[in-house]
Amino acid sequence: MRRLFYPGELTPEIRITGGDAHHLARVMRAQLGDVHVVAGADGRAARMTVTAVARDAVTLRLDSYVEDDAPARAEVILVQALLKGEKTDFIVQKAVELGAAALHPIVTEHVVVRYDAKKAAAKTARWQKIADEAAKQCGRLSLMHVAPVGAIDSILGDVEIFGGVDTTVIFCYEGERMQSMRAVLRTVMSARVVLIVGAEGGFSPTEAARLTAAGAQPVSLGHLILRAETAAIAALTVVQYELGNLDV
Amino acid sequence: MRRLFYPGELTPEIRITGGDAHHLARVMRAQLGDVHVVAGADGRAARMTVTAVARDAVTLRLDSYVEDDAPARAEVILVQALLKGEKTDFIVQKAVELGAAALHPIVTEHVVVRYDAKKAAAKTARWQKIADEAAKQCGRLSLMHVAPVGAIDSILGDVEIFGGVDTTVIFCYEGERMQSMRAVLRTVMSARVVLIVGAEGGFSPTEAARLTAAGAQPVSLGHLILRAETAAIAALTVVQYELGNLDV
Repeated sequence: MRRLFYPGELTPEIRITGGDAHHLARVMRAQLGDVHVVAGADGRAARMTVTAVARDAVTLRLDSYVEDDAPARAEVILVQALLKGEKTDFIVQKAVELGAAALHPIVTEHVVVRYDAKKAAAKTARWQKIADEAAKQCGRLSLMHVAPVGAIDSILGDVEIFGGVDTTVIFCYEGERMQSMRAVLRTVMSARVVLIVGAEGGFSPTEAARLTAAGAQPVSLGHLILRAETAAIAALTVVQYELGNLDV
Repeated sequence: MRRLFYPGELTPEIRITGGDAHHLARVMRAQLGDVHVVAGADGRAARMTVTAVARDAVTLRLDSYVEDDAPARAEVILVQALLKGEKTDFIVQKAVELGAAALHPIVTEHVVVRYDAKKAAAKTARWQKIADEAAKQCGRLSLMHVAPVGAIDSILGDVEIFGGVDTTVIFCYEGERMQSMRAVLRTVMSARVVLIVGAEGGFSPTEAARLTAAGAQPVSLGHLILRAETAAIAALTVVQYELGNLDV
């Protein structure tokens, strides 16, 4: 999931030394068999497997080259069910600060607010304005795209979201008792994470089943009982943290 | 930092197998030399060092017993500089949801609001009320204590915070260019983390130097530029995540 930079040309085997090796071995806790995407100085990137970890050097084996027209750091897309009152406005602002690439507002079973087509379009325009303003205020270079309000089915059918290669889709589900975010985020590796967060009350069991069938993984945020907007911010923070986007 | 449970009596060497071994080796990414606090079925707890990691078993050596009257999961104390407007109210509420054990409001150089003693006492009472209400709403069993508003010096001189054994103190510092939260949180291990977050504009270099001299570690939240209240929530989320408090 994390992308490494190697200051040389990628060869069938590379050896990372010095501070980078320390970072990889101690901070990122590289282990034998871990797979990383490594970007070389020649601009190419490859999936590489850790074959040796020593105190001052980490060796990786090149498995296959990957297309590397994605940005250097992995991106997060937030799919957020509409919340009551001003709370969606609030999440739009925080998602920009926390570096989300795009936000898809959706209507789910537990969504309380009802917008007709005209109101939904006006809301989207308003959220885009809030997002652009937030981007300016926090010095973010790229703008966060706010998609039109969609039904949950529109998301399930969106190949950009569910059909993407190198994409991991997770959804926060209160009914999830086994799988923490850590368990999912540390075992998958992809250039893009789609995070789906429900409204007050979360997702219905039916929706959870459909999301899972479509390839999304349910995750729990643990035993804390978070308000919907807190869950969205906390989940987005954890994803960015695991993607390395909160690292210096 | 994370506490493991071992379903037997602690002996000079223990061997963890099955699902626990998988969790430890793959999810928590245990490595040779890692130190964990392990609680045994007899109610005693000890610091133990990982001496072997295999696919289906992790072996640990008992180094020393520790007093185990702390709660099973590590606790977080938030020290928060006063923010403008209603933002401190907001952080109080979110800190309760995110499971902080206590909140210490402080005045720093960049704090804009000014409270006299009477107003400060009224504010503390109000925040405690907000905290108690939030605890009730989110079903939290223990209440979050809100301390009286203090000067930054009162925190530096508080042995409960800076003098505690098994306590790690970190502060979010925009001037920090080297050390990410991940780097600190994954290399330290303690039963308590004190997280210090500044006001709009963060800490002055003088304050940062004094905090560091007092034993606090500066951490960066990366390249994102977060509003003060977002930084507090994101940092608290990451600490809870690393402490395992967002795990199922």
